[in-house]
Amino acid sequence: MNIAVIGVGLIGGSVALSLKGKKGIGKIIGVDKSDLNLAKALKLGIVDETATLDEAIKSSKVLVLTIPVDGILSLLPELLDKVTDQVVIDMGSTKKLILAQVENHPKRGRLVALHPMAGTEYSGPEAALDNLFRGKVMVYTDVPESDDDAFEIADQLVELLEMKATFMNAEEHDAHTAYISHISHLTSMALALTVLEKEKSQGRIFELAGSGFESTVRLAKSSPDMWTPILQQNRDNVLEVLEEHISQLQQMYELLEKEDYGAIYKLIKKSNKIKRILS
Amino acid sequence: MNIAVIGVGLIGGSVALSLKGKKGIGKIIGVDKSDLNLAKALKLGIVDETATLDEAIKSSKVLVLTIPVDGILSLLPELLDKVTDQVVIDMGSTKKLILAQVENHPKRGRLVALHPMAGTEYSGPEAALDNLFRGKVMVYTDVPESDDDAFEIADQLVELLEMKATFMNAEEHDAHTAYISHISHLTSMALALTVLEKEKSQGRIFELAGSGFESTVRLAKSSPDMWTPILQQNRDNVLEVLEEHISQLQQMYELLEKEDYGAIYKLIKKSNKIKRILS
Repeated sequence: MNIAVIGVGLIGGSVALSLKGKKGIGKIIGVDKSDLNLAKALKLGIVDETATLDEAIKSSKVLVLTIPVDGILSLLPELLDKVTDQVVIDMGSTKKLILAQVENHPKRGRLVALHPMAGTEYSGPEAALDNLFRGKVMVYTDVPESDDDAFEIADQLVELLEMKATFMNAEEHDAHTAYISHISHLTSMALALTVLEKEKSQGRIFELAGSGFESTVRLAKSSPDMWTPILQQNRDNVLEVLEEHISQLQQMYELLEKEDYGAIYKLIKKSNKIKRILS
Repeated sequence: MNIAVIGVGLIGGSVALSLKGKKGIGKIIGVDKSDLNLAKALKLGIVDETATLDEAIKSSKVLVLTIPVDGILSLLPELLDKVTDQVVIDMGSTKKLILAQVENHPKRGRLVALHPMAGTEYSGPEAALDNLFRGKVMVYTDVPESDDDAFEIADQLVELLEMKATFMNAEEHDAHTAYISHISHLTSMALALTVLEKEKSQGRIFELAGSGFESTVRLAKSSPDMWTPILQQNRDNVLEVLEEHISQLQQMYELLEKEDYGAIYKLIKKSNKIKRILS
């Protein structure tokens, strides 16, 4: 079957590279509003051919939506209007608003809403990797709303991506990702801004950037085109977790201010419990 | 020449492994208040032999101090009392308080104060790596206070570690590292605490931990024995940067609360400037 990838950036390009030549996969067709990205994707061998959205709908069995979530929100209803027995897979980082938007659409069953818990801080076709998804978790949301055959096809593709599956509803998804993904990006960006501000007065600061700094701040390289709409669509959850995170930092500030090093020691030790989750 | 490593953990063990068998290096002697760590270091081939501090002072040309900074603060005066023409190298993560403590010591010249901008979130002899320092930056602080021959010997060792050198005074060092290293650890720890707190009510949250989360939070695995005294000794600088960081996060909170997505877009784009510093 032919697969159309709508949005040939990091995620779409990596889907294309990962599926290419696999059992049952026909042509990989790239669709993108940027002709430059399409040309790059073709040149890099990420897609077999490029097409307009309407051409891709005609010639593909599966349409994978891998554009920023504001684009998904506006394009999805139109896309569902146009499909018949094709499968539409949305891979956006937010779910609640997007799925509410098409809740009563007559073709809702053709949509399978997935979110791969994988990514890097880079964007564009050049950032695509053929092993981005391997061994990572794919979140399936609101599965009962999808037609059985659409789910089966999406599930086959997830298997070809060599991912582990987990299931939840859109609301749970958005609450969890605020904690696990969206806040990490915000803290990284805030840390970058803090340090960039300081560098104006202390030019030599970056000579000292060791590996700890690099890993904590690397998400601050992420694209504003992708992240602004994620924060917008998941605003309530992000505000909640941001408030908690600020209060944790304030607690540390207060303990350090009153020099309660016993309590600081205990807090660090408590934070070490993250070891049981991370490898 | 024989090298004594006082504290055979991540840093000391890595110094030992990196110097072992190099030109001009004799025996590597391990000193540690933990007999268990000494036994491990010997078994792992990190040190050639173990000794008490007094034995090590007698049989070594260079004594490298790689214990937590509270240990350095209390041990350094005693160590300088006991040396004659040996070189003492302190590798602590803070400098101002430690160097002020021995400012007027008659043997101050035997001390070379270095800080390798390298590390991992792990600790103990098992965490030692023979390539931890390669290509990284070594900060030399208050070099004019060291005797010329002591500096030359320390500099030879830094060359054997294959590190790049940078020079500053203790005050600059502590201000810069608060921004580049200490705050990264605090944000990581606060993020871990935020998420661990949430997990109590939402048990499935960690299924979703993708690579972004892991890299942002990995420093929260760091040892409280190492980090509590760092925060204590660099309190004033850390409070300053923590205050700035909290205000950056508060700014994001306020912009998201009033849904000013144009301003959020600009902030993310501004944070992207960190790209020109990080690879």
